[in-house]
Amino acid sequence: MGKAYDFGLVGLGVMGRNFILNVADNGFSAFGHDLDTEKVTALQKEGGDTNKVDASTDTATFVNALSSPRKIMLLVPAGKIVDSVIEGLIPLLDKGDIIIDGGNSFFTDTDRRDAYLAEKGIHFFGSGVSGGAKGARLGPSIMPGGNKEAYQHVKPIFEAVSAKYKGEPCVAYLGPKSAGNYVKMVHNGIEYGLMQLTSEIYDILKKGGNYTNAELHQTYSKWNAGRLQSFLVEITSEILNKKDDLADGDLVDKILDKAKQKGTGKWTSQNAMDLGIPVPSIDVAVSMREISALKEERVKADVLYDRPTVTLMDKEKLEKITEEALYFSFIITYAQGLHQLADASKEYGYKLDIATIAKIWRAGCIIRAGLLADITEAFNLDKELPNLLLSPSFIQKVQSTVGSARELVSYAAVNGIPLPGLSNSLTYFDAYTSNRLPLNLIQAQRDHFGSHTYERTDKEGIFHTEW
Amino acid sequence: MGKAYDFGLVGLGVMGRNFILNVADNGFSAFGHDLDTEKVTALQKEGGDTNKVDASTDTATFVNALSSPRKIMLLVPAGKIVDSVIEGLIPLLDKGDIIIDGGNSFFTDTDRRDAYLAEKGIHFFGSGVSGGAKGARLGPSIMPGGNKEAYQHVKPIFEAVSAKYKGEPCVAYLGPKSAGNYVKMVHNGIEYGLMQLTSEIYDILKKGGNYTNAELHQTYSKWNAGRLQSFLVEITSEILNKKDDLADGDLVDKILDKAKQKGTGKWTSQNAMDLGIPVPSIDVAVSMREISALKEERVKADVLYDRPTVTLMDKEKLEKITEEALYFSFIITYAQGLHQLADASKEYGYKLDIATIAKIWRAGCIIRAGLLADITEAFNLDKELPNLLLSPSFIQKVQSTVGSARELVSYAAVNGIPLPGLSNSLTYFDAYTSNRLPLNLIQAQRDHFGSHTYERTDKEGIFHTEW
Repeated sequence: MGKAYDFGLVGLGVMGRNFILNVADNGFSAFGHDLDTEKVTALQKEGGDTNKVDASTDTATFVNALSSPRKIMLLVPAGKIVDSVIEGLIPLLDKGDIIIDGGNSFFTDTDRRDAYLAEKGIHFFGSGVSGGAKGARLGPSIMPGGNKEAYQHVKPIFEAVSAKYKGEPCVAYLGPKSAGNYVKMVHNGIEYGLMQLTSEIYDILKKGGNYTNAELHQTYSKWNAGRLQSFLVEITSEILNKKDDLADGDLVDKILDKAKQKGTGKWTSQNAMDLGIPVPSIDVAVSMREISALKEERVKADVLYDRPTVTLMDKEKLEKITEEALYFSFIITYAQGLHQLADASKEYGYKLDIATIAKIWRAGCIIRAGLLADITEAFNLDKELPNLLLSPSFIQKVQSTVGSARELVSYAAVNGIPLPGLSNSLTYFDAYTSNRLPLNLIQAQRDHFGSHTYERTDKEGIFHTEW
Repeated sequence: MGKAYDFGLVGLGVMGRNFILNVADNGFSAFGHDLDTEKVTALQKEGGDTNKVDASTDTATFVNALSSPRKIMLLVPAGKIVDSVIEGLIPLLDKGDIIIDGGNSFFTDTDRRDAYLAEKGIHFFGSGVSGGAKGARLGPSIMPGGNKEAYQHVKPIFEAVSAKYKGEPCVAYLGPKSAGNYVKMVHNGIEYGLMQLTSEIYDILKKGGNYTNAELHQTYSKWNAGRLQSFLVEITSEILNKKDDLADGDLVDKILDKAKQKGTGKWTSQNAMDLGIPVPSIDVAVSMREISALKEERVKADVLYDRPTVTLMDKEKLEKITEEALYFSFIITYAQGLHQLADASKEYGYKLDIATIAKIWRAGCIIRAGLLADITEAFNLDKELPNLLLSPSFIQKVQSTVGSARELVSYAAVNGIPLPGLSNSLTYFDAYTSNRLPLNLIQAQRDHFGSHTYERTDKEGIFHTEW
């Protein structure tokens, strides 16, 4: 049968092809599989000269080409396709073989597949991969969850192909069952939040400071050299510098303001609600994509209502407070997502180490940012930290920037510029740091109309009043 | 077998007992059933003298006491209990009998039960009931969904027992299958939003205006006599006037600021996300209940961060802008919930008439308010209105009050008082009425890192750029 390949990959779309070439670049041989002949031929051409890559449209040829235990990664769209690929592989596999789902599968699907394959003696990994097509080719962040012993077979390859942060691989075993998919889901939820925030700041610089795209490009570039250093700030700078190929002017101005979504942000919010963990900066990022999609209604509503005339802010001042507000709200958004992970870890038995997660997010993934090095340290110092805002090392970062968030939210509210992500980051902070909230009134209302009872501040027990 | 009773009711808790007495007060005979002997005896005592009410712990006795077709309402906790009560009834029922679930069942459970019972020739209604214990006794708002023909048997009783608004009953057939449960779920989501808003205004009057409870009581009373007239404003006024029985002072100050939830608000938010309809004023009301529950973390966080010293606002001014801001944000919250209903109607085939829903909410239910008469009119004028904000009759109401919402959100942000519900109502308004949002940048980012493509403002088609 010829040589035995180290790694198998099903799904030779752009992510799959790039991932397999990355594996080959790092000294491992890899065999690809796709039903599409063109994709197979393309990979053979592109990777053939390395003598480390081959591919086939035939599933049996593919499976038989792999060394034991087989390590087969799927990079196919989440959903029923994952199940049908798995069904096609099962009869050809041996006990101890390993299937790795690299897509954004919903975590309960991963648990179901894990249990189903465990019965057959096959190991299953739900393993999020972040970094886009470029990351897959040059080094993504990888978030595997599954059987710990079986991970040892995958580890050398994943560590070789992953992104590196100061030499440390951006991959680690995260926990059993769907731990990896869950972490990737929340990664994407945070991503929704950060994207919304960068877009709000772009908006207010334009409306409140009359920034041109060239100035915006410079500002985001400058920020990317400072404490806001992050992939999303970096690509925002690039986007703002892109000329339009099809018409005069800058491309960003021609892009329709309807943002699509593929569901991972929504899942993060929905599951946070099931856990009872507040992630309002992520929730409202999902809402804003929805509002953006209601373009027709917005166009109608726009003409019905008057908007305040914007009072321009001094440019130097605006640039200072937007930088601080963005830094503040980035911290709050990471804090919310990590809070959710800490709680999910207990609820689903993942035993997550938050420091490890922050660590493997420092490079390769979409939410990589300078901040993640600080976050890693904070959770390394206190493994049981329930919320980043309680970390001594973050108090000064937050306290020194929240004032600008206040000023910006205040300015935007008066001037009719919507900053929902920033507003929710601020009200979350103000509520989370309040030892007394007005929800005593809500509990009184609940007891008034529904006899739902209440607790007291001064006595133990459950009380009900005939109001 | 003696007389045949018009109406049967399973579950003689406070809601069930009150509902059955209400039925009897309105000229119908009613038979109750509960496994708890005490509850059965209590009802017999309380309702026996009317000669219209009886009850039994025995299911067969109960079923045999009812006239044909039997109309049996369940007022038992949502979940498995509903299924087990149904299973107990099935063998004793005849084709054409009617079971009505009056609890807050999740709408997909209702669809499942509806299909299951339809196979057996039994009609099923998911029928939300709102108004608390008092409403059940004196006239609730009732939201039935199910088989339209079968509803004719239930209609005379429901119309008699329901609340009346200027003589019109606060009940109507809403649609097939789970339409009634779905409407009740969104009713509760709106309720979460309005409760959060009343609590925020209570907070800012205290912190920004040094209002005493007596002054707050007076303010809410006055408001309840104006355009803010509503059940929730009314009971807030009562709550603020209640002395503590167990200690000196006012009861509201002794109530612990941890608000519980039973899930309907969360379901509303989660399902709105599935539909892709933004309801951020409801989402953040759910988040705030969650934050309130994190009391221990809040107490720790409170000492770590400095809060701005509140600059008091002129009382007269504060009272004016809080009234306007509350009115504005009430409108926005209703608009979001009704938007969700309009979309759910298409998605699930409910064929809801939004005007009818607003109409039956005008009295009896927890979210009853003077505003609902205006909302009913708006949807009567335009049955296809996608969003209340697009109604000509609401433009002036919104435009004349949004300025105060801006001022209040701005003031609260600077002074460190969290107004998440108000902020989200304002940013929702500002985004929904913008023909151009900065989400072009988000779509550019998505295309940059994930090749997710974008649309253009100036050309048809789907585009991708090599950034």
